[in-house]
Amino acid sequence: MDEHEPAVKQQHRDTSKNKIWSLSRRYGLQPLHRVLLGHDGSMTALLELISCGEVALRTIKQSVVPCPQEAADLLAVAAGEPTNERDILIIRLSDGSPLIYARSYTPLVRLEPAFKADLMKANNPIGNIMQKYRIEARREIIDVGYIDKDRSLEELLACPPPYLWRAYNIITQGKPLITIKEFFSTSFPTL
Amino acid sequence: MDEHEPAVKQQHRDTSKNKIWSLSRRYGLQPLHRVLLGHDGSMTALLELISCGEVALRTIKQSVVPCPQEAADLLAVAAGEPTNERDILIIRLSDGSPLIYARSYTPLVRLEPAFKADLMKANNPIGNIMQKYRIEARREIIDVGYIDKDRSLEELLACPPPYLWRAYNIITQGKPLITIKEFFSTSFPTL
Repeated sequence: MDEHEPAVKQQHRDTSKNKIWSLSRRYGLQPLHRVLLGHDGSMTALLELISCGEVALRTIKQSVVPCPQEAADLLAVAAGEPTNERDILIIRLSDGSPLIYARSYTPLVRLEPAFKADLMKANNPIGNIMQKYRIEARREIIDVGYIDKDRSLEELLACPPPYLWRAYNIITQGKPLITIKEFFSTSFPTL
Repeated sequence: MDEHEPAVKQQHRDTSKNKIWSLSRRYGLQPLHRVLLGHDGSMTALLELISCGEVALRTIKQSVVPCPQEAADLLAVAAGEPTNERDILIIRLSDGSPLIYARSYTPLVRLEPAFKADLMKANNPIGNIMQKYRIEARREIIDVGYIDKDRSLEELLACPPPYLWRAYNIITQGKPLITIKEFFSTSFPTL
């Protein structure tokens, strides 16, 4: 620990890393599972590398909603703040296989107009929008977990359980721009 | 292509992605090889996820040198500008196995004093220093490649050929903070 970083932040990071190692030992995860859970780069870019081909975003649902309490706490905004809620799948373009399902919340107050227009346009992956505007950011993993079974994930991902999930924030200019929770199957189609 | 990004940048990115896919088809790379070549997150964090354990940095050589022309072009500084040159190995802490070898150049003029002190202290991975100071950044892959055989890499990595390499910049506040070239074996010890 050092004077430049509050104890809680350092702990956060170490906790996520240790939790991934521990899930890995407990459930026999593969290296790619751990990378999908814990990497701090663009998920779109990572999925294109794993799949060795283009991926695309399919929007399931998108609307501006009053920010729910849990997301508001993560985003450091007041609950009820107008927030873009987006449910998406990232699919492999070659055959339409779903790779991950994600739900995200973005407070409208944090969005520059051009970025907002792109985000609101359906089917734009956040990583691609950030690359387009050359946004400098850091990603902070909040938590990760393992789900034994879940009927709705089984339908969405068209893949059998168990599932893994991670929650993380993308932080720009010192504030969370977006909080994202992602789910994928351990029988991820390209493993 | 759109009006927010010069053609050359978009092309750069697509070129790296396509080059990785093409290397992959040509040499039968595994998904983790492609991830190591093309991901845009912290390499230290990625190696800890792949290895499922701590990694450490071992400095081979570090000194302030006049910036060589090739690095200067990538960093957008004048050749000869005082630059920190660092040759390192990232090793698996459990058994000391080398995972990657890297050479980097950082222009001193781009470094904040505290960051500079940490970088100059031997054995601090750049990803960890960036996390410590919560630096927002983006990583831009410049080029990737395949090396049939190389005696000095074989000694450094204690792993047989062939090898893969990537060159990338870490950009903060619109300017390259550091340019890095990394090398690893396709028989990477944790694959």
